[in-house]
Amino acid sequence: MSIRIGIYGYGNLGRGVENAIRQNSDMELVAVFTRRDPNSIKINTAGASVFHADELPKMTDKIDVLILCGGSAKDLPIQTPEMAKLYNVVDSFDTHAKIPQHFDNVDKAAKVGNKVAVISVGWDPGMFSVNRMYAETILPDGESYTFWGKGVSQGHSDAIRKIEGVLDAKQYTIPVEKALEKVRNGENPKLSTREKHTRECFVVAEDGADKERIEREIKTMPDYFADYDTTVHFITKEELIRDHSGIPHGGFVIRSGKTGENLENNHIIEYSLKLDSNPEFTSSVIVAYARAAYRMNKNGDSGCKTVFDIAPALLSPKTNEELRKNLL
Amino acid sequence: MSIRIGIYGYGNLGRGVENAIRQNSDMELVAVFTRRDPNSIKINTAGASVFHADELPKMTDKIDVLILCGGSAKDLPIQTPEMAKLYNVVDSFDTHAKIPQHFDNVDKAAKVGNKVAVISVGWDPGMFSVNRMYAETILPDGESYTFWGKGVSQGHSDAIRKIEGVLDAKQYTIPVEKALEKVRNGENPKLSTREKHTRECFVVAEDGADKERIEREIKTMPDYFADYDTTVHFITKEELIRDHSGIPHGGFVIRSGKTGENLENNHIIEYSLKLDSNPEFTSSVIVAYARAAYRMNKNGDSGCKTVFDIAPALLSPKTNEELRKNLL
Repeated sequence: MSIRIGIYGYGNLGRGVENAIRQNSDMELVAVFTRRDPNSIKINTAGASVFHADELPKMTDKIDVLILCGGSAKDLPIQTPEMAKLYNVVDSFDTHAKIPQHFDNVDKAAKVGNKVAVISVGWDPGMFSVNRMYAETILPDGESYTFWGKGVSQGHSDAIRKIEGVLDAKQYTIPVEKALEKVRNGENPKLSTREKHTRECFVVAEDGADKERIEREIKTMPDYFADYDTTVHFITKEELIRDHSGIPHGGFVIRSGKTGENLENNHIIEYSLKLDSNPEFTSSVIVAYARAAYRMNKNGDSGCKTVFDIAPALLSPKTNEELRKNLL
Repeated sequence: MSIRIGIYGYGNLGRGVENAIRQNSDMELVAVFTRRDPNSIKINTAGASVFHADELPKMTDKIDVLILCGGSAKDLPIQTPEMAKLYNVVDSFDTHAKIPQHFDNVDKAAKVGNKVAVISVGWDPGMFSVNRMYAETILPDGESYTFWGKGVSQGHSDAIRKIEGVLDAKQYTIPVEKALEKVRNGENPKLSTREKHTRECFVVAEDGADKERIEREIKTMPDYFADYDTTVHFITKEELIRDHSGIPHGGFVIRSGKTGENLENNHIIEYSLKLDSNPEFTSSVIVAYARAAYRMNKNGDSGCKTVFDIAPALLSPKTNEELRKNLL
């Protein structure tokens, strides 16, 4: 029998999850839940339904895992604890600073419901976190580095769009190659914010807008751009659509550490991602952890989990025998 | 209280484990066990003892985890099941084809003893296996590639040393840069053995030996060299010691896979290692898994485990709260 999946929220991430389910033959999409008018939503999966979110409490016997595809700022802090009382859930909560509090809220709810709730799944937090942890544990004497990009930062693009005279914009975060090289050489450099990443902005301005002012406002924007070397390109709406419609991302987690009687030997562990579609890759990770949530709950487990708490084998559709034979 | 560790076998790996224990403040080395004369062995840890292996059955109340540092060909198939009846154990059994049988033997023994036995720990099998599994599960539609090197292959170096007229030799396995590039570009190439790795040999020949014959014998040696592009350099004993005394290794695990409604987006997951000392890095991984074995057994678990079965958090000396706060 397939693992029956529900999706709550049908934006980029929800659509990515829908596609990822199709790539996993042991899963099926049962329903998409939305706060919009269900009739306004057209999904891609024959046989699956679209319901208003109000129907969620009534579907608990039809769905094994509910995947929460809302945003970290406003949706998930409410939805994940609420839903963890009713369903095994997976979310991609990514506000790093608020993870401990989110964990506690979700843990309480999931234990009330006897469900498994996996939070903060994706690539960062997610696969990058797992790799930071493995690497730091294996090489206790060393330094860890995370670089992001080249990729689109939604938050930074939004920040540019709010500037007067800007019609649309895309911002790319780019790791500094020289910094990456120093890290890979085992030099364990201390790197400032400016030394790690640059920011490149493609901006569509209103006709007659003061481009110099826009560029200045971008480059001096606190938190978002002021601490970085930022490049601004003004392009046309058509160029933006033609050349910058994708949502690529990725990055690098690197640990450089020493071993030996006198710590004379150096080792570099590097994990990197090069993603054509940030939301689709995130979705693919989420779907694998949905399988794990289902299995853990079936084995009697409950409460909130993160990628740290879940044995790798629980993610795979393969049996333990197959994994040992073919992948070990 | 510290986790009390025993080491069985004191070669490169055993010495590496001893050094790694020193880097983990929640562990202490209690004793090294050897089949040689204990008086012939000088260890580096004040307060730890050296015993003959015959003493192993008497130390079960002094040691929490016994780390088995013997060879995969002859030692571990016997020692791991034998010791798993008495101790929580970790080994680095690396004969891929025989892992299923080794697992079964060890599993039976560990269950008799109510102990946890973790087998095939290191980087391949080990961290490479975990990364192959995560990547394949996240991207079901794709291809996986493992490249090894640049690094010293002990087996290939030994094979050269057996040739008549050879005094000593070191062999490096080197991944082919062009093949790596194709994989990283998402081309999903079909790669022959020859296209993936080259082999470079540094050979010290006897005075007056027929170097042409030696080179020919190396390059045509079935399984070891015949399927590869092999380079042979004749050097002096002094050059070998000066330039080739290290045991570096490493490699790359790369998964290239597609997602999206029409599989239109490609993603590359890459995990790589660049190791100054193969045995010391392997030791560092083993010691982290010794911590996990201890914890799992304390929680009432028993039987044989691999890296697939062990949740990442069990490896780390940090609490779950710390991990969520600092690494997620």
